Amino acid sequence: MNSGIIIYLLGWIMNIEALFLMIPCLTAAVYGESIGFCYLAVAAACGLIGFLCVRKKPASKVFFAREGFVTVSLGWIILSLFGCMPFLLGGEITRFEDALFEIVSGFTTTGASILDKVEDLSKASLIWRSFSHWIGGMGILVFLLAVLPMTGDYNMHIMRAESPGPSVGKLVPKIRFTAKLLYSIYLFLTVVMFLLLLAGKMPLFDSLCMTFGAAGTGGFSCRNFGQAGYTAYQQNVITIFMLLFGVNFNVYYLFLIRKPKDAFKCEELRGYLVIVVAAIVLITLNTWGMFPDLRTAVHHVAFQVASIITTTGYSTVDFNQWPEFSKTLLLGIMFIGACAGSTGGGMKVSRVMIAFKEIKKELASVIHPRSVKVLKYEGKALDHNTLRSINAFIIVYFIILGVSVLLVSLDNFDFGTSFSAVVATLNNIGPGISEVGPAANFSGLSAMSKWVLIFDMLAGRLELFPMLVLLSPGTWIKR
Amino acid sequence: MNSGIIIYLLGWIMNIEALFLMIPCLTAAVYGESIGFCYLAVAAACGLIGFLCVRKKPASKVFFAREGFVTVSLGWIILSLFGCMPFLLGGEITRFEDALFEIVSGFTTTGASILDKVEDLSKASLIWRSFSHWIGGMGILVFLLAVLPMTGDYNMHIMRAESPGPSVGKLVPKIRFTAKLLYSIYLFLTVVMFLLLLAGKMPLFDSLCMTFGAAGTGGFSCRNFGQAGYTAYQQNVITIFMLLFGVNFNVYYLFLIRKPKDAFKCEELRGYLVIVVAAIVLITLNTWGMFPDLRTAVHHVAFQVASIITTTGYSTVDFNQWPEFSKTLLLGIMFIGACAGSTGGGMKVSRVMIAFKEIKKELASVIHPRSVKVLKYEGKALDHNTLRSINAFIIVYFIILGVSVLLVSLDNFDFGTSFSAVVATLNNIGPGISEVGPAANFSGLSAMSKWVLIFDMLAGRLELFPMLVLLSPGTWIKR
Repeated sequence: MNSGIIIYLLGWIMNIEALFLMIPCLTAAVYGESIGFCYLAVAAACGLIGFLCVRKKPASKVFFAREGFVTVSLGWIILSLFGCMPFLLGGEITRFEDALFEIVSGFTTTGASILDKVEDLSKASLIWRSFSHWIGGMGILVFLLAVLPMTGDYNMHIMRAESPGPSVGKLVPKIRFTAKLLYSIYLFLTVVMFLLLLAGKMPLFDSLCMTFGAAGTGGFSCRNFGQAGYTAYQQNVITIFMLLFGVNFNVYYLFLIRKPKDAFKCEELRGYLVIVVAAIVLITLNTWGMFPDLRTAVHHVAFQVASIITTTGYSTVDFNQWPEFSKTLLLGIMFIGACAGSTGGGMKVSRVMIAFKEIKKELASVIHPRSVKVLKYEGKALDHNTLRSINAFIIVYFIILGVSVLLVSLDNFDFGTSFSAVVATLNNIGPGISEVGPAANFSGLSAMSKWVLIFDMLAGRLELFPMLVLLSPGTWIKR
Repeated sequence: MNSGIIIYLLGWIMNIEALFLMIPCLTAAVYGESIGFCYLAVAAACGLIGFLCVRKKPASKVFFAREGFVTVSLGWIILSLFGCMPFLLGGEITRFEDALFEIVSGFTTTGASILDKVEDLSKASLIWRSFSHWIGGMGILVFLLAVLPMTGDYNMHIMRAESPGPSVGKLVPKIRFTAKLLYSIYLFLTVVMFLLLLAGKMPLFDSLCMTFGAAGTGGFSCRNFGQAGYTAYQQNVITIFMLLFGVNFNVYYLFLIRKPKDAFKCEELRGYLVIVVAAIVLITLNTWGMFPDLRTAVHHVAFQVASIITTTGYSTVDFNQWPEFSKTLLLGIMFIGACAGSTGGGMKVSRVMIAFKEIKKELASVIHPRSVKVLKYEGKALDHNTLRSINAFIIVYFIILGVSVLLVSLDNFDFGTSFSAVVATLNNIGPGISEVGPAANFSGLSAMSKWVLIFDMLAGRLELFPMLVLLSPGTWIKR
């Protein structure tokens, strides 16, 4: 293990976090909130330690996948540890596991909260919670790659470990340029959404928070009413942008280089749209009677489907009141999640599509044993290694799911609660059903359950393996 | 598709079923029940059609995996269609889907019932229900192979399609001899258990039903009190034999040829025992307070764990009243199931163990990329094809699970009910939790849910693929 380079990179993460902490500081200054000093103190500490770590350039540049995984998982843990400090120092959240839960939920773009009434928080903390979604959505290390003039073969390993999806789309040969491109598209969409919300007469502060949350597919609200109190136009803008942020960013790149035909050919985009439309139709049919008219039904169902499949977690209605079929279908699309290479969570549409193709091939090989069929995705043949890692991912996913549900069930809530609490955090969605439904929150869970869910949120955001590598004894034993 | 040979084999299945139907006929004669004539009529019809099908030997002997899968799935469907007729003719069950549900639950060794009070049934029907477990446990086609003097390369394909587990243990080179050996071990264990129950003063009729149910890891009771009314000795015999029938029969073969050392080296056996002991300890700790003393707690918990992991589904207590942790843990071992090559259902211990080994290897390859590690199980290297089919199995399993839960959720029961109903039938266990818990039954579900669960029981017993091959258009389209 090359610890020199890991410490160096972690140092940069702290420096950047110190910079990002200026946003709540500024907000506090504008609104005249004293909690700004807590944010300032944490930023100072963070920057100082960061500075000490980056002072010395690492001697060795040896960097393998292992180092990539460890850097990313430690990076996210450090990010969260500093990130939760202002809540504790300011006294807005009193217990450590609650504060950590809240900020991990932010950075991992989960959006699950332990707070009863968000409006009790200071504006500074509200903006920090929402902004953490924006940072976590595209990834802090991808940001690092985009802004730092670094060279070496570690870039690819970091990108791989932090980016969502089965295989990283290297948009262009140079990783640094890819990272810049991703953040540019991300920033552009964010700004457009923000302006559209402002144009729809949403208050400036709300527009900022809603945009950060939707861009990172996070889900924290800045109002006690969640998203129910916004106008239909504002809700529609949110629906559309949630869906847009769930699209594979490759598609936008193809538009950028003026290849719209290739963009529409993207198999994942098509699969994603089919699932979204199918879910909206089925749930509308199932819940129609609960709304005054069809138009209203489609409006709310579309919002909810967009929110759940992109794993954002906003809600305009309490879908825990919907019939079981709709709730189960929502739970189903929670599993699927958004596209790879987007800011959304879940298993990713592409993994699910590839798994289906595998099954089809397996069946075909029984029916016509002599036929040789090559598995193709996005027009390319899938190699053995990609398939193996997708299978491993799916299996690990269900193992973590099962063990977590078991541990959370010690709290003795009903099965729907413990199951959906884990699904909602592992997929970085936010609200579950029953006791952790959209009208409730996670504060009633025991400390142990919160620690389990903190792990699940991190594991889910980093696509399972980095956290497992970090915890494997093999990583730390010399041989 | 070589339909000649498929019809020929289906004919033999009907002949054998006609023979098996003599058992309820005989029971009816002993107890002087008029329903015996219904059984006789069905047996006659079954035998006649069967006779017509086997009159002509098939011209072509071409037989591939595809034919194997189709024969097995059609065979089980025909078996069930004839098997449910006596219930309908005798008027003991009035609706077709209920009667089919009951007998499919029998043959697939599920043990889920739609009946409120089993003692309302005639003795003939009670014994037929329980005997269906015994037939289904080892498989009707394996029985066919054991008794019919057939040659040809189809034997292996049939055995593969019907036997539980990732790879068929060909105990000895000749398939026919393997089938005979399996049935001999099966019969021997059945007789020993029956005698031990008789020795424990259980009534003859009960001893027969309990033994058939435990041998096939089925779970139908012949008493309204389930298994709660039996003595502690009788319950202990059942506990031990449930566990014994969940062991890979390979182990018994190794004992038979006097290689006990090899038998104890069996990785699956060890894994199975570890899971059983761990589950008993954890659940005992969790439920201790609900029992008068530790001894009673261990007694009932061991019974329940043995019943659930072997997917039998007997119960001495209403475990739906246990704390959520225990219920969730039981749900967890429902997924795992018994050993491959046993009469139990579920995913099988070996599949789960191999999946864990895959994950470990995947992690190791990240941590030490240059190390080359071969996956070994039971001392043999696992080839690429075995792994691929295990992965495909696990993925198909979760897809069927998800779609089924979604369909059953249309009934609008709570999530625990729809989820556990599917898990309990897909794994061929019997009772679920909540509305389909051990103290309740499946009669409250809608007709559509029952059809879904009938499919799940068959798919679960035949290890998913045969049913999918049967339903694939590719199987039936010539090319």
